[in-house]
Amino acid sequence: MKIAILPGDGIGTEIIAEAVKVLKALDLTFEMETAPVGGAAYAAHGHPLPEATLELAKAADAVLFGAVGDFQYDKLERALRPEQAILGLRKELGLFANFRPAICYEELTHASSLKPELVAGLDILIIRELTGDIYFGQPRGRRTAVDGHFPGAEEAFDTMRYSRPEIERIAHVAFQAARKRGRKVLSVDKANVLETFQFWRDVVTEVHQAYPDVQLEHMYVDNAAMQLVKAPKNIDVLVTGNMFGDILSDEAAMLTGSIGMLPSASLNEKNQGLYEPSHGSAPDIAGKGIANPLATILSAAMMLRYSLGQPEAADRIERAVKKVLASGLRTVDIYSEGTKKVGTVEMGDAVVAAL
Amino acid sequence: MKIAILPGDGIGTEIIAEAVKVLKALDLTFEMETAPVGGAAYAAHGHPLPEATLELAKAADAVLFGAVGDFQYDKLERALRPEQAILGLRKELGLFANFRPAICYEELTHASSLKPELVAGLDILIIRELTGDIYFGQPRGRRTAVDGHFPGAEEAFDTMRYSRPEIERIAHVAFQAARKRGRKVLSVDKANVLETFQFWRDVVTEVHQAYPDVQLEHMYVDNAAMQLVKAPKNIDVLVTGNMFGDILSDEAAMLTGSIGMLPSASLNEKNQGLYEPSHGSAPDIAGKGIANPLATILSAAMMLRYSLGQPEAADRIERAVKKVLASGLRTVDIYSEGTKKVGTVEMGDAVVAAL
Ligand SMILES: CC(C)[C@H](C(=O)O)[C@@H](O)C(=O)O
Ligand SMILES: CC(C)[C@H](C(=O)O)[C@@H](O)C(=O)O
Repeated sequence: MKIAILPGDGIGTEIIAEAVKVLKALDLTFEMETAPVGGAAYAAHGHPLPEATLELAKAADAVLFGAVGDFQYDKLERALRPEQAILGLRKELGLFANFRPAICYEELTHASSLKPELVAGLDILIIRELTGDIYFGQPRGRRTAVDGHFPGAEEAFDTMRYSRPEIERIAHVAFQAARKRGRKVLSVDKANVLETFQFWRDVVTEVHQAYPDVQLEHMYVDNAAMQLVKAPKNIDVLVTGNMFGDILSDEAAMLTGSIGMLPSASLNEKNQGLYEPSHGSAPDIAGKGIANPLATILSAAMMLRYSLGQPEAADRIERAVKKVLASGLRTVDIYSEGTKKVGTVEMGDAVVAAL
Repeated sequence: MKIAILPGDGIGTEIIAEAVKVLKALDLTFEMETAPVGGAAYAAHGHPLPEATLELAKAADAVLFGAVGDFQYDKLERALRPEQAILGLRKELGLFANFRPAICYEELTHASSLKPELVAGLDILIIRELTGDIYFGQPRGRRTAVDGHFPGAEEAFDTMRYSRPEIERIAHVAFQAARKRGRKVLSVDKANVLETFQFWRDVVTEVHQAYPDVQLEHMYVDNAAMQLVKAPKNIDVLVTGNMFGDILSDEAAMLTGSIGMLPSASLNEKNQGLYEPSHGSAPDIAGKGIANPLATILSAAMMLRYSLGQPEAADRIERAVKKVLASGLRTVDIYSEGTKKVGTVEMGDAVVAAL
């Protein structure tokens, strides 16, 4: 079992260190190798995704990823900015299926912006297609407009696209995931406006034929953005394209009030995967030892389950995290009166102790 | 002052009737003419936006629009579906600037999904570009993929695009609106991934030079979807493209908890405008006399202010609506214990009485 460890920028190094500590405390042998990515890689090697890092990721069974991005790289040209590393890894490894659970832990319900009764027990699985859509569609660029409202003016453009097999494979992933949960899939599109998403709706409906035991509902993206606020607990599995998934998965994560707790997995067809916390690199608190490592530790659990065939080890980690929460330890992002505030390292140590 | 009245489908007829009642109670003379639109127009004339309806709208100073859409039209081919009427009107009248306030009325704070302290006094103005972006960009359609992940497969595609003058004019609208409010503009894009929205960011930054008294912040759309949940009161004016605006304006409207109260305006360069409630046609409650007419009545107030040069009449209506709320009358969507439940017509009558 070979794991590529890519800490990245900001709090990345700190949170990854705790996840590695937890992995090492299991009775399993892993080969772990660390490489720079994002701004840190640009600073050291002139590129956010150096060739050696990419090769390491490709050769590994799984990638454990911290976070990328820092203020000082904001002014770089797009191709050199830290987030290109994550787009590059998704593309090069073919990580088309992104799993983003939005779970509200009982002890943290009060931290949500939403009224407690709306989020208590919330458990949504968002499945976002991750290698298609307008993220990677060609052509794109700048040119002189030949038609539209202002022919002759300078314009910029991008191409949204989805092919039938791309939609089919992510639909299968969603229906299969739903079978292990509440057997309900909500497919989110904008079929009333976009050709791409009318096609999406058509193909998802076709794939659904093979899953008569799973209930399928279609919803427009604007309505989905509302239903997430109004009645999030009605949603079981939500499947959507790359662009809409970017927006809705972040909205859903924030609804839980504890984005510092949420892991994510991005898988390819061989179950090779990249695992990372749902939150970002938080450069404003980097180096202070206060970041919450639990999303990264829970990402390591997902990695054990999905890419490394170690579901029991995954369960152990998840149980340990629950125990630690129940014992009242909290990093500052999830702290509330009556609980005990701890730093990044103490939190990691507590999970190891609870294993 | 010529007003085209387009009631549309579902609750459209009921809510428009109340707004017309309120307009007639003012001491002003309007020429009002009604025409079918949406499913109702398809049923009567075979098209959701018949030529006569479009001509009426073009010849009017303003369009007062109810809502379109009903279950029975869901299976029609796209070009005949009710929502094509609204897309057609936007395009034909050049209604590029969509104003969608997300306001939380003091008496209705408790109706929000969010904790009261997060929304009390909320007053966001979302300005959505409405005639460009991926909504209208060509080419679009289905074809055989020549590249991408599955060359040779069937695919569907759309084109996202914005030209410089399109971005400039909506940016000016946003900065000017901010000058009349909190002098803060949040421009939402996805410049880290999309060429179109890197260009958007560049042009908005340029236009900002002319408004040194207004503060400009840029934010990615996924982060904006989160900040709306986390700290909506930090936002004053939010400006964005057509697609992101569709999603974020609905999310923001739902956050207030009283989408039945929220008007909208869509203007062209001559201040001709289309005014409609932010909510939809709600076919499930149509004909029951329980729909909330206040969003439509408040849309009529916006119409008086923006297209008909009658700011005092607009103020009168808005004050009347506040008085009615303060008196404790509520339609079912905003009802809570201790208030008095009324129907659509009673609510309209109450506003007229309070004028
Ligand atoms: C950093 C950015 C390119 C990325 C995306 O838009 O996919 C991020 O927002 C995410 O969701 O992982
Ligand atoms: C009906 C639909 C085409 C429309 C849109 O997407 O613009 C609606 O959602 C809106 O926001 O007015």
